[in-house]
Amino acid sequence: MNTNLPTSLQALNPKAAHTCLGIENFITSKLQKSLSGTVLLVALSGGVDSSALLIILTCLAKKSGFTVKAAHFNHQIRHESDAEEAHAQSLCNALHIELLTEKADVCTYASENKLGLEEAARILRYEFLESSRVSIGADWIVTGHHANDLAEDVVMRLIRGTGWPALGGMEAICNNRRILRPLLMTPKSTLISFARSSSLIWCEDASNTDKNFLRNRVRTEVIPLLCKENPAFLEAITSLWELAQIDSDHWAAIIDQHLDKTDFEQPVLLKEDLNSMSLATRLRMYKAVLGSMGKGQPLQHNLLALDAAWKANVGGKVVQFPGNKIATIRKGSIYFSYR
Amino acid sequence: MNTNLPTSLQALNPKAAHTCLGIENFITSKLQKSLSGTVLLVALSGGVDSSALLIILTCLAKKSGFTVKAAHFNHQIRHESDAEEAHAQSLCNALHIELLTEKADVCTYASENKLGLEEAARILRYEFLESSRVSIGADWIVTGHHANDLAEDVVMRLIRGTGWPALGGMEAICNNRRILRPLLMTPKSTLISFARSSSLIWCEDASNTDKNFLRNRVRTEVIPLLCKENPAFLEAITSLWELAQIDSDHWAAIIDQHLDKTDFEQPVLLKEDLNSMSLATRLRMYKAVLGSMGKGQPLQHNLLALDAAWKANVGGKVVQFPGNKIATIRKGSIYFSYR
Repeated sequence: MNTNLPTSLQALNPKAAHTCLGIENFITSKLQKSLSGTVLLVALSGGVDSSALLIILTCLAKKSGFTVKAAHFNHQIRHESDAEEAHAQSLCNALHIELLTEKADVCTYASENKLGLEEAARILRYEFLESSRVSIGADWIVTGHHANDLAEDVVMRLIRGTGWPALGGMEAICNNRRILRPLLMTPKSTLISFARSSSLIWCEDASNTDKNFLRNRVRTEVIPLLCKENPAFLEAITSLWELAQIDSDHWAAIIDQHLDKTDFEQPVLLKEDLNSMSLATRLRMYKAVLGSMGKGQPLQHNLLALDAAWKANVGGKVVQFPGNKIATIRKGSIYFSYR
Repeated sequence: MNTNLPTSLQALNPKAAHTCLGIENFITSKLQKSLSGTVLLVALSGGVDSSALLIILTCLAKKSGFTVKAAHFNHQIRHESDAEEAHAQSLCNALHIELLTEKADVCTYASENKLGLEEAARILRYEFLESSRVSIGADWIVTGHHANDLAEDVVMRLIRGTGWPALGGMEAICNNRRILRPLLMTPKSTLISFARSSSLIWCEDASNTDKNFLRNRVRTEVIPLLCKENPAFLEAITSLWELAQIDSDHWAAIIDQHLDKTDFEQPVLLKEDLNSMSLATRLRMYKAVLGSMGKGQPLQHNLLALDAAWKANVGGKVVQFPGNKIATIRKGSIYFSYR
């Protein structure tokens, strides 16, 4: 590994420094998050995205006042897995970054739990990242998801079907899961330029071209068509994402305000509150209450059916939801419980 | 032309009758629109969509209590244009429907106004449809846009970049333009089945396969990939559309409530109102006020810049918008005017 990798903004050429500062600005201005005094745990695969992320954060650490650590999960599902771990280790050595590693038998876990290999790897990887985060006292798990990943995510959500603001794509901050995605507005091409200018060597993940995965088909077949129609397609996606975040904050505030009043053991949406809400608000409120009751995603037509029953004011009417949840309409209010 | 075309629900086979009733249900239940006593003017190209629409509405006319008329615009841009007009005429004769027709020189209009041929045709066609609607006293112009058109529209909006709820696609009712799209939830395949079972003959528009048009590339290249990933992709799109309409109603009510208080000559958003709004609401309010002031679409970053200036409370700060519109911040309120 090149031991002359940049570890400060001063060591970067102007373009690379500009990339770093743009990412810092995204965190502080758009996400309105100060990372001063925090410890960041970078999820380091050894690919170009997370490797560039590690260098970018290392260069920003002094200015922004955070500490950078890294964690590498060895999936052991490819021939190159051990070489990737060794690469991650030498990268961290060169940058003087503490690295946590873990090997896991993803194949056995997948077959035992009847999961796809990718899904099993994702579950075990995030379990490892979260336990690492806790063990070293880090505040955030930081991932290398970038604007191209975001575009793929939006297109996959469109294909599978979703609502709004979910259609806008993955979040940049996930408070529950302590995940931060500071590269989400940065195109992959910018990361590659950054990596090259830093003389970074990285591992190419061969599974990224495996057409058995939906994500890879979207990346290699769908996104190029969309970019051909609009060369600024990635910007259209990041703009859409920004609007989705703004709407997400709007709806979260309304939901929180109402859920605050609700007893989580026996959630109720009261007649007078429901009467003051639009259908758009009511549907999101039903979803939030059902979501607070545990596993089981309500379907759109379930939520619309509940609203139709509420509107018709069918006393005693019971609407069933996945996860053994039920909603009962009584005197214009809706009572939620388990079957 | 087959003179045994069905003109009543009773003349249809059960599946075709079911298609008709589903469309009637969409109008009355989802759109909550009664068409009883109205006159509908079908925009009839002679293709399968609008021809099926004409028969469907003819079969529903008695039950729903509306009158059906038709209008055909002869673009004269293809060899088949006159044959298509003759076809539309014989279809209307067979169904005993009054048909209005007009020929126009689209090519000259396009070159004189420096427009693309498709754009010029669209403008002249809608001018003709609206003047026909007024001249025969029809309530609505009814078009054959179906669920596949909707999916193309959503994908094109995603490609070009847009906000929400616009991303959900075209409206089923356009009150300003008096346009109704009752087939918007109906897949094209259902219309073709309907047409075949009615022994309908229709004209294929050769320009529908012309790859020079974005819409055709989306139809033939992008949508098939999305449908391959999710065979229920059209349903995902119509579900998304429904959520978009619900949100559209929500925001329209909020905007109307505030705009009601505003003087349209000199629109103002008052400090106390702005303070009570979320960013999501404020951005939509700025857009609505600027929209009410005439031509010129504000860009997302213009709207965000205005909000940032308002938040920073920069007294006297002027933000410029397309169409010579300006917004001035004074004592926490925003005053809109022309440059």
